[in-house]
Amino acid sequence: MDSVRHLIEIALKEDIGSGDITTENLIAPDLEGTGVILAKEPLVIAGLDVARQVFEHLDSEVILKSGCKDGDTLGNKEIVAHVEGQLRALLMGERTALNFLQRLSGIATHVRSYIDEVGKTKVRLVDTRKTTPGWRILEKYAVRIGGAHNHRMGLYDGILIKDNHIAVCGGVKKAVERMQKRRSHLLKIEVEVSEFDQVKEALSAGADVIMLDNMNIAQIREAVKIVDGRAMVEVSGGITQSSLKQLADTGVDIISVGALTHAARSVDISMRINPLP
Amino acid sequence: MDSVRHLIEIALKEDIGSGDITTENLIAPDLEGTGVILAKEPLVIAGLDVARQVFEHLDSEVILKSGCKDGDTLGNKEIVAHVEGQLRALLMGERTALNFLQRLSGIATHVRSYIDEVGKTKVRLVDTRKTTPGWRILEKYAVRIGGAHNHRMGLYDGILIKDNHIAVCGGVKKAVERMQKRRSHLLKIEVEVSEFDQVKEALSAGADVIMLDNMNIAQIREAVKIVDGRAMVEVSGGITQSSLKQLADTGVDIISVGALTHAARSVDISMRINPLP
Amino acid sequence: MDSVRHLIEIALKEDIGSGDITTENLIAPDLEGTGVILAKEPLVIAGLDVARQVFEHLDSEVILKSGCKDGDTLGNKEIVAHVEGQLRALLMGERTALNFLQRLSGIATHVRSYIDEVGKTKVRLVDTRKTTPGWRILEKYAVRIGGAHNHRMGLYDGILIKDNHIAVCGGVKKAVERMQKRRSHLLKIEVEVSEFDQVKEALSAGADVIMLDNMNIAQIREAVKIVDGRAMVEVSGGITQSSLKQLADTGVDIISVGALTHAARSVDISMRINPLP
Amino acid sequence: MDSVRHLIEIALKEDIGSGDITTENLIAPDLEGTGVILAKEPLVIAGLDVARQVFEHLDSEVILKSGCKDGDTLGNKEIVAHVEGQLRALLMGERTALNFLQRLSGIATHVRSYIDEVGKTKVRLVDTRKTTPGWRILEKYAVRIGGAHNHRMGLYDGILIKDNHIAVCGGVKKAVERMQKRRSHLLKIEVEVSEFDQVKEALSAGADVIMLDNMNIAQIREAVKIVDGRAMVEVSGGITQSSLKQLADTGVDIISVGALTHAARSVDISMRINPLP
Amino acid sequence: MDSVRHLIEIALKEDIGSGDITTENLIAPDLEGTGVILAKEPLVIAGLDVARQVFEHLDSEVILKSGCKDGDTLGNKEIVAHVEGQLRALLMGERTALNFLQRLSGIATHVRSYIDEVGKTKVRLVDTRKTTPGWRILEKYAVRIGGAHNHRMGLYDGILIKDNHIAVCGGVKKAVERMQKRRSHLLKIEVEVSEFDQVKEALSAGADVIMLDNMNIAQIREAVKIVDGRAMVEVSGGITQSSLKQLADTGVDIISVGALTHAARSVDISMRINPLP
Amino acid sequence: MDSVRHLIEIALKEDIGSGDITTENLIAPDLEGTGVILAKEPLVIAGLDVARQVFEHLDSEVILKSGCKDGDTLGNKEIVAHVEGQLRALLMGERTALNFLQRLSGIATHVRSYIDEVGKTKVRLVDTRKTTPGWRILEKYAVRIGGAHNHRMGLYDGILIKDNHIAVCGGVKKAVERMQKRRSHLLKIEVEVSEFDQVKEALSAGADVIMLDNMNIAQIREAVKIVDGRAMVEVSGGITQSSLKQLADTGVDIISVGALTHAARSVDISMRINPLP
Repeated sequence: MDSVRHLIEIALKEDIGSGDITTENLIAPDLEGTGVILAKEPLVIAGLDVARQVFEHLDSEVILKSGCKDGDTLGNKEIVAHVEGQLRALLMGERTALNFLQRLSGIATHVRSYIDEVGKTKVRLVDTRKTTPGWRILEKYAVRIGGAHNHRMGLYDGILIKDNHIAVCGGVKKAVERMQKRRSHLLKIEVEVSEFDQVKEALSAGADVIMLDNMNIAQIREAVKIVDGRAMVEVSGGITQSSLKQLADTGVDIISVGALTHAARSVDISMRINPLP
Repeated sequence: MDSVRHLIEIALKEDIGSGDITTENLIAPDLEGTGVILAKEPLVIAGLDVARQVFEHLDSEVILKSGCKDGDTLGNKEIVAHVEGQLRALLMGERTALNFLQRLSGIATHVRSYIDEVGKTKVRLVDTRKTTPGWRILEKYAVRIGGAHNHRMGLYDGILIKDNHIAVCGGVKKAVERMQKRRSHLLKIEVEVSEFDQVKEALSAGADVIMLDNMNIAQIREAVKIVDGRAMVEVSGGITQSSLKQLADTGVDIISVGALTHAARSVDISMRINPLP
Repeated sequence: MDSVRHLIEIALKEDIGSGDITTENLIAPDLEGTGVILAKEPLVIAGLDVARQVFEHLDSEVILKSGCKDGDTLGNKEIVAHVEGQLRALLMGERTALNFLQRLSGIATHVRSYIDEVGKTKVRLVDTRKTTPGWRILEKYAVRIGGAHNHRMGLYDGILIKDNHIAVCGGVKKAVERMQKRRSHLLKIEVEVSEFDQVKEALSAGADVIMLDNMNIAQIREAVKIVDGRAMVEVSGGITQSSLKQLADTGVDIISVGALTHAARSVDISMRINPLP
Repeated sequence: MDSVRHLIEIALKEDIGSGDITTENLIAPDLEGTGVILAKEPLVIAGLDVARQVFEHLDSEVILKSGCKDGDTLGNKEIVAHVEGQLRALLMGERTALNFLQRLSGIATHVRSYIDEVGKTKVRLVDTRKTTPGWRILEKYAVRIGGAHNHRMGLYDGILIKDNHIAVCGGVKKAVERMQKRRSHLLKIEVEVSEFDQVKEALSAGADVIMLDNMNIAQIREAVKIVDGRAMVEVSGGITQSSLKQLADTGVDIISVGALTHAARSVDISMRINPLP
Repeated sequence: MDSVRHLIEIALKEDIGSGDITTENLIAPDLEGTGVILAKEPLVIAGLDVARQVFEHLDSEVILKSGCKDGDTLGNKEIVAHVEGQLRALLMGERTALNFLQRLSGIATHVRSYIDEVGKTKVRLVDTRKTTPGWRILEKYAVRIGGAHNHRMGLYDGILIKDNHIAVCGGVKKAVERMQKRRSHLLKIEVEVSEFDQVKEALSAGADVIMLDNMNIAQIREAVKIVDGRAMVEVSGGITQSSLKQLADTGVDIISVGALTHAARSVDISMRINPLP
Repeated sequence: MDSVRHLIEIALKEDIGSGDITTENLIAPDLEGTGVILAKEPLVIAGLDVARQVFEHLDSEVILKSGCKDGDTLGNKEIVAHVEGQLRALLMGERTALNFLQRLSGIATHVRSYIDEVGKTKVRLVDTRKTTPGWRILEKYAVRIGGAHNHRMGLYDGILIKDNHIAVCGGVKKAVERMQKRRSHLLKIEVEVSEFDQVKEALSAGADVIMLDNMNIAQIREAVKIVDGRAMVEVSGGITQSSLKQLADTGVDIISVGALTHAARSVDISMRINPLP
């Protein structure tokens, strides 16, 4: 929570710096104003509370009211929120608030389209660590709002043994066993494998999740058969929106897609500000 | 400079947190490694120095060597840089370094395609304040690397009188005149106008730059004629990559395009890490 | 705004540190008190809001009421403000609040005397970057309160090409032209020159402001004649309060005076505190 | 120490902000330069190490060499120091380094003139807490460099019972006795008194230092006689440079003078920078 | 004060990090709850205000009510405080609030037992700088709550000349005399000595406090006789709870005991939380 | 890593503040010295690198050499490390470095005695979140050095459903099932239960770890039988060092003991400093 507030402070500082010279020279400090935030294209809204905090940081008495909540779908020209407070605060916070809303809603909207693709299968769609530096918590939040799940938040709350770790340890078996002895008993062990032999090794060493790296559909099917429910199976790498359905049908448990965050584009949201009479 | 270093620290903290549990449990701290950073699609590289700082933050003796420099064009599979240092630092910094490189190079590549569109006209393509909160300096840097120019960095280093300011002041003339008296003599005055009468008013009040808001091509041509070199003319709003050339030919001086930053997608860059024997 | 709050925190920390051992040992935390802040010499008041913030930082419910506002002239023994709140907060904040008020009012008072000197000419008196490190925004604010204008806030919001830049670029013309291509279109270009030839070069290269460095009155008059309205003219360097009027009469547009900030002395302001019965 | 480094960072940030647009656009990053820092009037130098840190913050390989050390007296045009390093760092750090040097040397020079006034008496001249907020440690350092002593650094490292404390406690005696019980045994107790009866009360309660507040010369002489060596005697309030000698002859131990810091003006120091060929 | 708030923020951050995954997934944000904090063994309570701040940091409207105040003695199962607020805030703040309370009350309880040992002698029991890094102000506060006094807070608010300083200066006399000339007149001088000759030297040089280092009872008695009231006498080093009474009877003024803080164990305090219906 | 460096900075700041008045007045800045750190009782050493960082923060060229490494057992009077550097840095860093070493080694030593108790059974001894606020990462590190394992680092990297969560969700089954749907697939689910029915419910809902809260030995044995290997079993609450062996023999997998951290006392470690000739 604190880290989001910190990012908001940085964002306002980088935009306002030593002062908004236009507004401070033209708008009296005691003027009040209202603003309407509008969707300019169909979207899934995310980040309402961040936008509120942006304005509150500039004027602790700003009021932001919204008829919708994060996760709602809005059409073009639908109202996202009404804001009321010092006119200066509205003018100085507008761009920053919109920049947050546009990106977070952009991710939520993008993720929703993937979720619609997968449909009613039991497979779980998850994000990766391919997020905008500084934005991890916010972007992972937008992913959940969009309807997908989060993979680990960072390197600190999930174990994922990759090819390099395996190479240094001398094989899948040794890597998993060494980890068994050291990891917290609350964390599962996931191992990245690229061959069937490694799948078997991982299973016999007691891995909890097996990540199949860059296998084709046939190979994935075969790997799922080998695992046979003894571990969860995750696929990752080179996944496009159009291949999702087919992947889901292979019987894997988890599909991780970096594109959920790093290929999302900002959606268009605008704000109309008026001075109060 | 400091604000970039600060963002790097935040980024590493959000990814590593209380520790990389996989790497710290499996990789001895004294192991050394090498890494090769590779372009996975054609791109304009940007952010080499940021990537270097990411690794140096984790291991002050890491060496990052590159045969290219920011702004160079690379093809698919071309080498971006070689890194050498503690294996732990390479593994723990990899994702963050790539996340920076992918986004900054993504913007530079995107901007370059706009620049190619405009070609050899005298018009200047500039960005806006539609940047990722926390990333203003970096994204504006990537815009320059891509070949475009920067509009103001924030609200503090440029005057832009918008419709709200005009409404509160009681017209373009009053707003510009009030600003004349107060602004630093080193700053020009830009005014946003939407009608020909406002153009004339702005000129007579001594505005330095006139921004035409959402006018069509014919209107823009007319406005340029009215201004007749007495001020710079900027167009803004609803500009697509395909309309650039036509806009450039109207005789305007500046075209500002929010899409330069907010519509850029990350490009694909990967890293292969190997332990040193 | 935030940077002022930050300076206030630093100031209270450096004065209070691990605690006000006198007050915390002698004054019960629930005692309330009142204070009267008094001018001890004729002055232009500046910094009322900073003083308020100092006390609020120590006791969020302190009330500071003032019958005057920044920029008002007060005589000896006139009341600056009344403060009411926790007695401990008044005692612990007194020195810091006064230190701010004395310095800011000192600058405002000093500047006002310069402004009185210049009188009703059209010339604009501006400050420089010779400010107390850490106090830039506050001191430039006090300059405006005193009636003068600000030069650029820092190196980031104004272009001033000095002799070193010129030497490296190979002459005034080359320096200005290189800058034309790179600077934001919202920033003017100021060049420092010391000879008439440089004045002409600057004009032909399109400089917006020409700073005459250490010229005598006759030379300044001549330079103004050469420029003939094609650029603004600023004089700087070695300016005393007594030469102001004469300088103003040369026809220059801007006189920049470092002494506005760096030669101002603190004015005398005191505070009388009483416990509430 | 850290707090000085912190102030330097703030100072550079407020001056450079998002970048030195003149220097970054005109001076290549790999150019080297030299600078000479010069006294422009007779002064006592103070702050050489702060100036060094300013440049080092911008270029860790800058070298600042000086033939003098803090406390030395320099004549007009004498060299303070030579600096060598990246030309950009010299240009961007120049103003900040000089602003520090000018203020600190200004205080040291001012203090030295007071010290010369007092001459060879045993009296100790000390500063007060009337310092520039944020500069406490630095200004108290400059006071020592000038030859005077420091009163307490802040509210945390010295006990000074003032009229308010006395009023709340119900008299000098009660205040001192309550403090005896609570203070650290390493701290003396100083009490501010304005009448002879209070002097006697303070003595009998065991005060270590008695501060005579706004007494005239005759009263001070009488008070010194009453105290008769049983405590130290400090005078404070309304002291001018010309009354110092007379005060010193009354036999008091300590004269505290707020003017040492708050009435000091900056001295003139400049820097000449040249690119290295 | 600020440093305590800062430690609370660090503590909550290290516990909650990117979020309380159990609570955020299972407890709705709008649920309210109550909590009862209970002593699980006899103890002297300390830290009530810190606990309050912990919860307030998570929910600014939490209410913590207590029938007792810091320094009160509680029996097993007695109620420390009632808390009411967002259920999430109670669950997320519980462990941190208790960790503060347990350690601070542990110190207060431990110190109280020492005080009981010393009884009604005039000797003053003081702590040392052997505190938990980051906790200096809080632990010294708990020491006072327990009934003992504080030695200096740190190296900045008390002078203690140790064997190393003496060796470098060339003897006790030289060290004390050099310090006389330089120290603030509000600070006493304490010297650590290990032989009778040093005691005499310290006295003749005018030391205010003499610390006897690791002397036995007989030696201490002899030293007290030598000092004969001309300075305060402090003993330090190798002091056990059982030797306190005997030490107190030697006539020393101060006994400093590192164990007050560094040998205290946490006391047992728990919290029962219930959702509000 | 950064959070440890941050704690070190806080610790030095709280001890040194505005300066070490004794050392800075008596010891010249250019003097060098050596120090020997000694164990004053048998102990398991932990924190060598933290001690090194403390001194390096004060003098970047300090050298700390040790013949032992964290986890080694030392006898009374054995040498922990040699330090060499500026004498001032040694004197100013001594107390802080020792305070870190004493607490971390105290925990490691304490944990080692518990580990010796448990002996060669397969049971895993883990710590809890009962750590000193601000010290989580360091104390959990010392626990590992002592030979035990860590439970979750905080609320963010492990799921532990407690009685409150269960009550709000309406039973163990509902709580676990809701969590299944939401948690990251890399995290196990642990549930706290106090009755056999809850054990069965937890198993059927798919809990990975079952924590038996305050059961007696017979009940624990019965619970282990019920679980029968379908989940891990953890016991917690009211565990004394003497009951460890018996608990280990019940067949549980994990014993969590808050006392590992919160009941550890500091061990005695000292430092002897000498000036270099």
